[in-house]
Amino acid sequence: MALDTIETPFGRRDDAVGGAGTYAGLAASILAPVRLVGVVGDDFPRAAMDDLASRGVDLAGVETIPGGKSFRWGGVYRFDMNTRDTLFTELNVFADFNPQIPADWRETPFVFLANIQPQLQLSVLDQVAGALFVVADTMNFWIEGEREALDALLARIDLLVINDAELRQLSGEHNLALGARKVLAMGPRFLVVKKGEYGAALVWEGGHFTLPALPLPDVVDPTGAGDSFAGGLIGMLAWLDDTGEDALRAALAAGTATASLCVQDFGVEALKRLTTAEVCDRYEALRAMTLFPPCPLIES
Amino acid sequence: MALDTIETPFGRRDDAVGGAGTYAGLAASILAPVRLVGVVGDDFPRAAMDDLASRGVDLAGVETIPGGKSFRWGGVYRFDMNTRDTLFTELNVFADFNPQIPADWRETPFVFLANIQPQLQLSVLDQVAGALFVVADTMNFWIEGEREALDALLARIDLLVINDAELRQLSGEHNLALGARKVLAMGPRFLVVKKGEYGAALVWEGGHFTLPALPLPDVVDPTGAGDSFAGGLIGMLAWLDDTGEDALRAALAAGTATASLCVQDFGVEALKRLTTAEVCDRYEALRAMTLFPPCPLIES
Repeated sequence: MALDTIETPFGRRDDAVGGAGTYAGLAASILAPVRLVGVVGDDFPRAAMDDLASRGVDLAGVETIPGGKSFRWGGVYRFDMNTRDTLFTELNVFADFNPQIPADWRETPFVFLANIQPQLQLSVLDQVAGALFVVADTMNFWIEGEREALDALLARIDLLVINDAELRQLSGEHNLALGARKVLAMGPRFLVVKKGEYGAALVWEGGHFTLPALPLPDVVDPTGAGDSFAGGLIGMLAWLDDTGEDALRAALAAGTATASLCVQDFGVEALKRLTTAEVCDRYEALRAMTLFPPCPLIES
Repeated sequence: MALDTIETPFGRRDDAVGGAGTYAGLAASILAPVRLVGVVGDDFPRAAMDDLASRGVDLAGVETIPGGKSFRWGGVYRFDMNTRDTLFTELNVFADFNPQIPADWRETPFVFLANIQPQLQLSVLDQVAGALFVVADTMNFWIEGEREALDALLARIDLLVINDAELRQLSGEHNLALGARKVLAMGPRFLVVKKGEYGAALVWEGGHFTLPALPLPDVVDPTGAGDSFAGGLIGMLAWLDDTGEDALRAALAAGTATASLCVQDFGVEALKRLTTAEVCDRYEALRAMTLFPPCPLIES
């Protein structure tokens, strides 16, 4: 949970409410009851907590440090929106974060471990031993500097969500198909590879599924795209209460739909007013973009 | 029609039979009767002509220049197979090529104008006034140097096939969705954008369709991928005798399937033994990779 200062070609926001947990929690909340774990300072806006609570997000796992300052990040997106420069990162209360999961959350069935030190992700996992399906995110920083803990994590999760550059880094393979096989051999049963404007792919032992991104003429702020994608994905799995191949395909489409809505406004604005009807419309737009008839030559 | 000297990390071929017409003609020949227009010297192997004829390709439009040398191209593919260096280009008999279409080919319904000077593509179009659907390819060289003729061509064709870099160059837009709209405004009713390992997209006024590439662990020689794609595409349109949206979606899948088979052997080797069953298998593999259930939230 963070306060972000964001500048894009379309405007600027100072100390906007953000953070992976906030984005993913809001995104998932329209599909399933959400339990949020995080840490904030007492500068974190009360209104933002109320927004989360009003979406049914249980905040019993959010620790508020009296006198502490919330994590802050500042960045600028260039004109093509594909690259961003980080201007500052202040860990603040995040520096000493040691996630404590409420005892009665131990059996939480669907768990999303947002991007954080893999040691902390492992600590959370220890505290939700009753989880049925665990999705984890990570980043280049941990792939490079915390490989041992990350390897321990990969052996214990069901699905890893990373982008194509991270996949190349983690696997040491340029070819994404070969790299994906290597990552599956590290532990997770499923891998989701995010490819930016080219969409996302789901890979598992027996095959794979690819999904394009929705072409959006009006991307305003890409912040939170990956976390709202993960939130929509795990939200759909929880909604379906199913982790079979078809459920995962639907979950990837729900995540893509959710992320496409998120980036059309600043920060969490679009997610605060998100509806299942909106997600469903985008989901069906994806189907219309990808459907084609069975091979006409089968009968010939 | 050309003789190609190709070097890839997997081997080398000298004076291998190739050229856009040969690749596209062989690819389409399993789906529809093909009429081929081109020029060769008398060094072009008789066996290659026989291979084409045995696939039902009508060679009445192929001119053989006595004492002439066929067009020759030589190139090296680097290890990642995505970039190639041209070592030499000898136009030879191609330098004075002036396509003459047999008079009784005037009503040919489906026409593919492979990449060549747009003036010559226009001349071919004048000679097939009865065409129902015209597909054209082009390249960066003509976009830069022959814009006037290319614009005249774009106003007269139904579908343009280009890659993403060419789309950016032709439209002056970095964003592919915006660029595609601009190109449609130049004339063609449909645009196919080839995005290499990321697949291809079909764009028209009312919407668009995207298709991933098949992940191939064993790409041996990418030469002819674009032309076998175009051949499979127009072959499917002719087979269906339909140019509606669904037919075009099927055609894009057939083109992708055909190209994936082409690149798994050197030159035209895979295309010489191509079957509809092989194309259909790959086509269905693409469907399995892209299908996902209707939005589960519709009922909620």
